[in-house]
Amino acid sequence: MQAITLPTFGDEDVLTLAEVPAPELREGEVLVDVAAAGVNRADLMQRQGFYPPPKGESELPGLEVSGTISRIGDGVEGWSVGDRVCALLAGGGYAEQVAVPVGQLLPVPEGVDLVDAAALPEVTSTVWSNVFLTANLQPEEVFLVHGGSSGIGTMAIQLAHAVGARVAVTAGTQEKLDACAKLGADILINYKEQDFVDEIRSATDGSGANVILDVMGAKYLGRNVDALATSGRLVIIGMQGGTKGELDIAALLGKRAAVIATSLRARPRPEKATIVAAVREHVWPLIEAGRVRPIVHARMPLAQAADAHRLLQGSSHIGKVLLTL
Amino acid sequence: MQAITLPTFGDEDVLTLAEVPAPELREGEVLVDVAAAGVNRADLMQRQGFYPPPKGESELPGLEVSGTISRIGDGVEGWSVGDRVCALLAGGGYAEQVAVPVGQLLPVPEGVDLVDAAALPEVTSTVWSNVFLTANLQPEEVFLVHGGSSGIGTMAIQLAHAVGARVAVTAGTQEKLDACAKLGADILINYKEQDFVDEIRSATDGSGANVILDVMGAKYLGRNVDALATSGRLVIIGMQGGTKGELDIAALLGKRAAVIATSLRARPRPEKATIVAAVREHVWPLIEAGRVRPIVHARMPLAQAADAHRLLQGSSHIGKVLLTL
Repeated sequence: MQAITLPTFGDEDVLTLAEVPAPELREGEVLVDVAAAGVNRADLMQRQGFYPPPKGESELPGLEVSGTISRIGDGVEGWSVGDRVCALLAGGGYAEQVAVPVGQLLPVPEGVDLVDAAALPEVTSTVWSNVFLTANLQPEEVFLVHGGSSGIGTMAIQLAHAVGARVAVTAGTQEKLDACAKLGADILINYKEQDFVDEIRSATDGSGANVILDVMGAKYLGRNVDALATSGRLVIIGMQGGTKGELDIAALLGKRAAVIATSLRARPRPEKATIVAAVREHVWPLIEAGRVRPIVHARMPLAQAADAHRLLQGSSHIGKVLLTL
Repeated sequence: MQAITLPTFGDEDVLTLAEVPAPELREGEVLVDVAAAGVNRADLMQRQGFYPPPKGESELPGLEVSGTISRIGDGVEGWSVGDRVCALLAGGGYAEQVAVPVGQLLPVPEGVDLVDAAALPEVTSTVWSNVFLTANLQPEEVFLVHGGSSGIGTMAIQLAHAVGARVAVTAGTQEKLDACAKLGADILINYKEQDFVDEIRSATDGSGANVILDVMGAKYLGRNVDALATSGRLVIIGMQGGTKGELDIAALLGKRAAVIATSLRARPRPEKATIVAAVREHVWPLIEAGRVRPIVHARMPLAQAADAHRLLQGSSHIGKVLLTL
């Protein structure tokens, strides 16, 4: 089969379309003929050699796909050849076929295009597990997501808004903030022109954000703690601004607050299956009711994976970038 | 009434026995004639001027007492004059009488001496709220408590052991470690001679502690994160080793772990009532069954509060220090 391979690590041009063996199907897996693969920032890190796949998983990039089941492995029940699905992966999505553990499969939601469904698994699993399962965001609480126009951001806004939270976002342009507002964001902060701590405080009578979803890591650690409300929860899922930062424990203790750092890819399969099951139970009905939708910025052919990586790196996109087959 | 007052902030000698007005009883409160008051490290900080009482609460030191109800305020049900009680306070315990919000009252457990009961409210509430309600310690998990021979430590060991966790402690002398072992500690670490990260790892096949209860703050932050297991929870309730420390977010993210900092005193009354109700439901039966008991190092007359503070400061004690009336 054709796939995007990484003969070496480096800039976008190392992404190489090549003929590789089709994946072997292990017990509890199904083979999916890929229609589209989502591009994630983690793929850019993997390409640079900073984010190796978990042991035993595909070395190919690609953390999510949509497509059609073409073969059923041993021990799989409840799925059939021909089913239209999308899936959360530990790797291997930039390819014509991928083997998927059954716990990481989701049906394509009613009303969603097969290709667009590739935009759903990573962002819904990431947002649901972190914002709802881990940080336990409640209706009426204030939720701040940094990078509101990213794939994660556009889903986080919609889900938090759907459960009745008040949503604040940071983004770097008015165009991005306008897009966030259309998805349900209430408090719009241009981080290039405004201090997000001041803005969150003034928008909340000084009380701050109950939950913050952060991808900046060290660079924002101090200000994120400043922006938290009493009993607030800061969830860090990216470190685009560095990995080591000063933690003001007195400030955290004064707020009785928590700093949690997590990732999805490294979780063992049973944990991924638990998250995917929760997504299917809680998020899929919102999508099928039209209250939440995949936000797709661009579809590009698989062979243009390098351009897709450049697009993500440039950060001018709003929503997800997909590679199509 | 007689009480220990703080005419000024400073060393132990500022603690002054004086005649002060009896407390006024507000709605939802009872008056308790104090039999004994627990001495806490927070009292030492308050004496030095670093830990003012929450707004509207007594300026006198003392975060817990035992005694007998002598008057019932408006709106109080379920308690009677003459009831033997102990209570969690926001202040005011170093006195002949104290006004207690009804949600912070506990009956003296069956089989516990009235004076010794003053050793229970702070440590049971602190340990239950942090280790069980917040960090959700599970049976079979590994629990590390720093300062295992402290008041908090001696209760944390017993409760974690009672629920079936494997308990690790740090302490500075063999005598203290022996006392911890008798209370149920399984892994004994002399922090003056051993590195607790190495010891926890070697005792757990490299996996680390699932929950850590810490009072050192900044000084231990890095090593506590190192000592955490995957999905571990570090709960910081004291900052004896400083307030600002470097957080290795990459290490935290790699473990999908959480750093939580909390305090009990600053919580609003309804939160304290929730915690006290949980303590009564979950901890009191363990005490009444003889599986958990107050560990009292010394009883001293109220007039010797300065000596009691020196004793706590010196850290030679094992368990709680009580002031008696």
